[in-house]
Amino acid sequence: VSAPSHGVRVELGERSYDVCVGAGLLDDLASKLTALGAVTSVMLVTNPTVRALYGATVEQAIEPVSGKPPLVIEIRDGERFKNLATLESIYDTALDAGVDRGTLLIALGGGVVGDLAGFAAATLLRGIRVAMLPTTLLAQVDASVGGKTGVNRRQGKNLVGAFHQPSLVLADTLTLATLPAREYRAGLAEVVKYGMILDSDLFALLETRIDDVTAADATLMTEIVARSVELKAGIVERDETESGLRAVLNFGHTVGHAIEQATGYTRYLHGEAVAIGMVAAVGVSVAVGNCDPSLGRRLEKLLAALGLEK
Amino acid sequence: VSAPSHGVRVELGERSYDVCVGAGLLDDLASKLTALGAVTSVMLVTNPTVRALYGATVEQAIEPVSGKPPLVIEIRDGERFKNLATLESIYDTALDAGVDRGTLLIALGGGVVGDLAGFAAATLLRGIRVAMLPTTLLAQVDASVGGKTGVNRRQGKNLVGAFHQPSLVLADTLTLATLPAREYRAGLAEVVKYGMILDSDLFALLETRIDDVTAADATLMTEIVARSVELKAGIVERDETESGLRAVLNFGHTVGHAIEQATGYTRYLHGEAVAIGMVAAVGVSVAVGNCDPSLGRRLEKLLAALGLEK
Repeated sequence: VSAPSHGVRVELGERSYDVCVGAGLLDDLASKLTALGAVTSVMLVTNPTVRALYGATVEQAIEPVSGKPPLVIEIRDGERFKNLATLESIYDTALDAGVDRGTLLIALGGGVVGDLAGFAAATLLRGIRVAMLPTTLLAQVDASVGGKTGVNRRQGKNLVGAFHQPSLVLADTLTLATLPAREYRAGLAEVVKYGMILDSDLFALLETRIDDVTAADATLMTEIVARSVELKAGIVERDETESGLRAVLNFGHTVGHAIEQATGYTRYLHGEAVAIGMVAAVGVSVAVGNCDPSLGRRLEKLLAALGLEK
Repeated sequence: VSAPSHGVRVELGERSYDVCVGAGLLDDLASKLTALGAVTSVMLVTNPTVRALYGATVEQAIEPVSGKPPLVIEIRDGERFKNLATLESIYDTALDAGVDRGTLLIALGGGVVGDLAGFAAATLLRGIRVAMLPTTLLAQVDASVGGKTGVNRRQGKNLVGAFHQPSLVLADTLTLATLPAREYRAGLAEVVKYGMILDSDLFALLETRIDDVTAADATLMTEIVARSVELKAGIVERDETESGLRAVLNFGHTVGHAIEQATGYTRYLHGEAVAIGMVAAVGVSVAVGNCDPSLGRRLEKLLAALGLEK
């Protein structure tokens, strides 16, 4: 019996794809991969932490699809490895193993794995397919959807990359229970952002179900992740390459990025910095009369309840 | 008085662009750049050899467009520098100088400059505009049109890259007179290829005007380059990312690449290897009855007259 799940279609013409969200979905991976059509080989990009948790399940699901076990490309865990040197190691492993234009890359992990594997897929042989299996809340509601890929440079984050839409995204909300509490809470900041800028019902849902949210209740989080993905998909469909509208998704990020950079990317997680940035942005809006002060108070109260108050 | 020139439109929806071909066109660069719309800054990628010949003309034309002289990014001359290390040096120079999404990269040079600058433009800030000013025959009739960009890896040529269409291509056929004779002849092999696979009139034109062709007569070469670009554009329009049809452009390249690889890319220029590959391909076609033997004889005679007989 399959777990209840939501399918969100991202409509981008010939680059359209499905985002599947549900508790236990990794067990259905084989059938989802089969729907992608012919695959000559599969290469799985992941890190040791995630592989220890989900590697066996995923590798088992891949074998019937490509007729052999996947080549596993392990990268190191952490934002500081999201660079050209790691990308080059992915290129070499893939090229030595005979990657061809029918190869499917699969990214299993958080945003770092997704951004690196996505950029490798965008550029190996001038573009091959990639499937995203995001295992962090941040990656499920944000990074895995929309095709932004890239690496950091010493001049700043994500300064080199490509827009390359995935062929499939599969978000298993059971994985959220294995996240460190701090990382999970930081991911919730992006959900709060969607509620603030696009969906007052989602914002209210977070307020009323705060205990289930913080406990990562899989049924509730399936609903919340799917709704977040729908909201992001709606924006991406209208502005795939961020020439205008898509910039609304940067709410809270201007100050947030400045805080991350000023503290050398070590003190705050991305979502924690975004939480501070949202409070600052709303503060400015209230000050100039563009925002009701009560919304600012609700935002601060919600962030505090999620442990994102500092 | 402007020199006679041909404009070829490459129709790819929102990625459409003009290819301008003519003798002395570099002198018209400023007006062509102005037609691209707002530009915040211009960065010129070139190598010392080409810069010595055309740098002053091009830099002078750029200044009124962006209100300041271009940042010049010099890379080393030669296929062996078409690698990730050179790409990284372009990234660093551009990022240190404050590249933004309104920046225009200009590639002034042959295929190596175009492939590197094009790939940098494809990936800096997830994609900025690039204009191609090809100065070799090979780049004018092939590399600068169609959006293929990339770098070599030790596993092979062009294994990492992107499809990224330029915003403008401007081919000044006067530059052909400054090419080393051997490089010029090798570029003619790609013109012969177009004649063989797509245009018997072009093939016949090469046969009847052989002296003017080898002398790089600017009027005749404007006609020949423009026709070659039209033929390539027609293929690219129907198969932008080489999922099928575009592979016809690889005629002679299977054997050609093998020859280049087997000889370590030092003995033959690309066009020389393609010439050998075309003779081999036609030989096979004649042997299996798919090609009239007289065409094979005409090909060998034409290549010999162009100094590509070995």
